[in-house]
Amino acid sequence: MKHISLFEANDFSEKGRKRLLVHDSPYFKILNFNFLPGQGLPLHAHDIEGQVSLLVLEGEGEFLAGQGQAFAVKAGDFVVCDIAEPHGVQARTPMRLLVTIAPPI
Amino acid sequence: MKHISLFEANDFSEKGRKRLLVHDSPYFKILNFNFLPGQGLPLHAHDIEGQVSLLVLEGEGEFLAGQGQAFAVKAGDFVVCDIAEPHGVQARTPMRLLVTIAPPI
Repeated sequence: MKHISLFEANDFSEKGRKRLLVHDSPYFKILNFNFLPGQGLPLHAHDIEGQVSLLVLEGEGEFLAGQGQAFAVKAGDFVVCDIAEPHGVQARTPMRLLVTIAPPI
Repeated sequence: MKHISLFEANDFSEKGRKRLLVHDSPYFKILNFNFLPGQGLPLHAHDIEGQVSLLVLEGEGEFLAGQGQAFAVKAGDFVVCDIAEPHGVQARTPMRLLVTIAPPI
């Protein structure tokens, strides 16, 4: 059993988002991104099979989707979509995000 | 893109843990369990291939592992293990937990 305290294992940087590889296995890949206000993951998509989930652990911001859609999110907000669908995140306050990708890419 | 506010979509019950099926697909299964103090998931294992991750979203308690191991956890604490390895959770305060299983069972 692998144990990580995400709030202690990753911090924030003015230079850009901070990325922590939490877990990678044949089953799923789990990442933690920390964003300062204005940082994020630009809207993007990968032309591969599988799904990705995004979960806000702390802070507030917006989830981004195709056709210019954006909706406000806060701690506890979760989305899931095909990896081939456009998805992104923008932080309004310091934000911690968990990203789970299955199968791993 | 499916959006769920986990903190609004699931509550707590004196009768027992509250389980919310957040997502189920060919790629992964995602569940949210809410526990009041003393509630939890007893130590268990499934003799199948795959891995399970547990993430504390809110609250405090203990993660349980094989051979009587238990360690204190709080919001942001994450574990991952094979589904075949013994794992469990016990809440000390009201606790929200996210469970991700890949491949889904």
